Amino acid sequence: MSETPDSAVHTADTRAVRTYIERHRSAFLGELAEWLRIPSVSAQPERAADVRRSAEWLAAALGRTGFPVVEIWETDGAPAVFAEWPSGEPDAPTVLVYGHHDVQPAAREDGWHTEPFEPVVADGRLYGRGAADDKGQVLFHTLGVRAHLAATGRTAPAVHLKMIVEGEEESGSPHFRALVEEHAARLAADVVIVSDTGMWSETTPTVCTGMRGVADCEIDLYGPDQDIHSGSFGGAVPNPVTVAGRIVAALHDSDERVAIPGFYDGVTELTDAERALMAELPFDENAWLTTARSHGTLGEAGFSTLERVWARPTAEVNGIGGGYQGPGGKTIVPATAHVKLSFRLVAGQDPARIETVVRTWLAEQVPAGIRHEIVFGAPTRPCLTPLDHPALTAVSGAMSRAFDGAKVRYTREGGSGPAADLQDVLDAPVLFLGISVPSDGWHAPNEKIELDLLMKGVETTAHLWGDLPAALRDTTRAEPLLT
Amino acid sequence: MSETPDSAVHTADTRAVRTYIERHRSAFLGELAEWLRIPSVSAQPERAADVRRSAEWLAAALGRTGFPVVEIWETDGAPAVFAEWPSGEPDAPTVLVYGHHDVQPAAREDGWHTEPFEPVVADGRLYGRGAADDKGQVLFHTLGVRAHLAATGRTAPAVHLKMIVEGEEESGSPHFRALVEEHAARLAADVVIVSDTGMWSETTPTVCTGMRGVADCEIDLYGPDQDIHSGSFGGAVPNPVTVAGRIVAALHDSDERVAIPGFYDGVTELTDAERALMAELPFDENAWLTTARSHGTLGEAGFSTLERVWARPTAEVNGIGGGYQGPGGKTIVPATAHVKLSFRLVAGQDPARIETVVRTWLAEQVPAGIRHEIVFGAPTRPCLTPLDHPALTAVSGAMSRAFDGAKVRYTREGGSGPAADLQDVLDAPVLFLGISVPSDGWHAPNEKIELDLLMKGVETTAHLWGDLPAALRDTTRAEPLLT
Repeated sequence: MSETPDSAVHTADTRAVRTYIERHRSAFLGELAEWLRIPSVSAQPERAADVRRSAEWLAAALGRTGFPVVEIWETDGAPAVFAEWPSGEPDAPTVLVYGHHDVQPAAREDGWHTEPFEPVVADGRLYGRGAADDKGQVLFHTLGVRAHLAATGRTAPAVHLKMIVEGEEESGSPHFRALVEEHAARLAADVVIVSDTGMWSETTPTVCTGMRGVADCEIDLYGPDQDIHSGSFGGAVPNPVTVAGRIVAALHDSDERVAIPGFYDGVTELTDAERALMAELPFDENAWLTTARSHGTLGEAGFSTLERVWARPTAEVNGIGGGYQGPGGKTIVPATAHVKLSFRLVAGQDPARIETVVRTWLAEQVPAGIRHEIVFGAPTRPCLTPLDHPALTAVSGAMSRAFDGAKVRYTREGGSGPAADLQDVLDAPVLFLGISVPSDGWHAPNEKIELDLLMKGVETTAHLWGDLPAALRDTTRAEPLLT
Repeated sequence: MSETPDSAVHTADTRAVRTYIERHRSAFLGELAEWLRIPSVSAQPERAADVRRSAEWLAAALGRTGFPVVEIWETDGAPAVFAEWPSGEPDAPTVLVYGHHDVQPAAREDGWHTEPFEPVVADGRLYGRGAADDKGQVLFHTLGVRAHLAATGRTAPAVHLKMIVEGEEESGSPHFRALVEEHAARLAADVVIVSDTGMWSETTPTVCTGMRGVADCEIDLYGPDQDIHSGSFGGAVPNPVTVAGRIVAALHDSDERVAIPGFYDGVTELTDAERALMAELPFDENAWLTTARSHGTLGEAGFSTLERVWARPTAEVNGIGGGYQGPGGKTIVPATAHVKLSFRLVAGQDPARIETVVRTWLAEQVPAGIRHEIVFGAPTRPCLTPLDHPALTAVSGAMSRAFDGAKVRYTREGGSGPAADLQDVLDAPVLFLGISVPSDGWHAPNEKIELDLLMKGVETTAHLWGDLPAALRDTTRAEPLLT
């Protein structure tokens, strides 16, 4: 077989890809169903052996796929799986695929129509915990790389292909960053492809180009040494719960913009082109509100709902407590109050700088007589790939081919994830290639994946591994990230 | 004996009063100690029999004192004691003394140096739970009326003397108002004397002229139907905890005045004379802060600390809760938030009107997409006796005689109490005659009463019952109250 770096040779023929996929679809689905039977619930300690069994199952599957290097990497928690398949060409770009093999808890009595760990195919869908999040989206890469090889006649992928599949994502990835730092050299890549997200809808293929980051803190406010009588002392001493309320109220101005001085410094603003692209998406605000289980919209003036959740930084109160919370009343000036805040961050915002401006601002909100403490958790940085990044162009091109030439649109993800650790430690751009759809029921009963879409994911990667070398040819290293 | 309404006959001679008291002091203290041995803790269900025994003990003691009518009044909780001693003169004013026979919980291990229910006399003080709050201050009326009779040579008091001594004050007087309403005709009085308060200090005799009222409410705020992901939805939907914070912040303006429109309508403002009298009191703000266990003062601009807690209405947050309050962070937009508020009220403020203005104001604070509910508890009205009220003049005059001619000053009480129920239902002015001092340790370990001050209380009432008829002679009924 030819292994010369000729794009004509790399690029897979659509018909050849589809033929290969059709022939192997049934066996692939059988393998996926087998994996879904392993209840790898990382949040349940009694499932630890199942999580390990899931890692071992995946390692074996990747070995059968042809990955010459497959390793189980231990962490202080559940094991991860690493696999590597070097390209025949030394100059080929390196791609690292990220996913996870652990799943959310599930029990029949939560409202499942079938046993969550006994996968069932019906109406073109595969039902079972982990079908979409994330086992289906991890495993399609095995059929994808085989289809890439078959359609191009190669014996090794056109890219240096690596996979890292962690086992604790549903538990907050507590050991993932340490794992990435420990193995940074082996994980090094030009592009990170995250397969743990979704598309806009069955009929609107999309690629996610970024996630917001997050910084969170807990503020403790101390007033009197104990709860004191509001009759004897009320109205004459500072009340820490009142101060907590004032802090919360001071977070935003009347335009719902974050009012902390310096908070917006450096923010990568949406371009007119990006806003126009977002506005083109068939967004139904009422449907979105139903999904949000919310009864109204409220956010930063001058931005649409999608812009607010995808591309604007926020300050959110996640919890508050102080004083008497039991039944009835209690006439006290409370001794303490506590506020939990989180800030979603977008490209251009540095979590360390956010911590500084929040600390400075907070100190100015607290009156004499109240002592305050503030503790920040470990932040997650935002990630954003510019719309003209060649790797993104390659991904959307490959997806468009899989979707019969449909226009691929760009989305973002409002949440934050361990992908940012890969971006940070490996200094590589992160692209989100997910083929799940909102109806797949992540974290919910009756999780499923649309089998036709799953095959589109296979097809996309079968094209992508062939297309990427040419796309990245002029860049020895991917663009610096906008963070 | 003469029973003519001649003030010369009524007025007791100071020497005669003191002679009588000295002769009976020891026996009186023996009786008080006997009562203090009954652990009448109303908050502890297992002490219910002791609370009843305490009522029976008091009824017997009042019978021995000479009250011709002594009854135990049942409530849906602990029993109260009622006693009545008609004056010989039908036109004599009627005085109702209020106190309570239940006590706070107490246990040696809380820090008592002696057994809390084994009273001990040391250094001129009587130690024991209830010594000051309120058994000592109830029982001094027995010796007081006997001294009044002895010193004036009367066989019945110069006033129609009634006593109502409840058994649930330390549990919030849950059945007191119903009791007063049930027996309103028998409790009818021209003046109510509450003996359940304190004086400024051992060396500054004072009479309390009013208590603040209180209205309280709980506000519930409902946002999304459940906690939702702050990454997916944060920044675009209203957050009920944010709204709770804004409500709390909106309670006050930058001068720490309550910012609810209409809140101050009708407030009886302090006169310059009242402010001057308050300013004369030897107030030590640092000592007050130590008592408050607080680390700073903060309150309505333009008023002193004493004015703020005694004579100004307030809005206080007693508790707040919403969202995640456990350890660490949780990136949610919470579904609900709850705020407990209480408003201290002063004369001129009507609790029903306060409820109306708070409801109106609240509705304006809540944005679309958030549903709110507000529930008010039963309010307690403020009470205030004008400084020129003849009964107040009589009380301060009698106290001055007991304190060797010392100037008697006026205080107020920032808290709220069941006295307001008496004021409301009986439409009578309430005067607070207490001889406890701040060091007596109400609700604390090692509660005590100063025996010399206790005897001053006896002496004050011995004079007061004689002085009141003349003081009230020109008023068929006491002045209308400033509420």
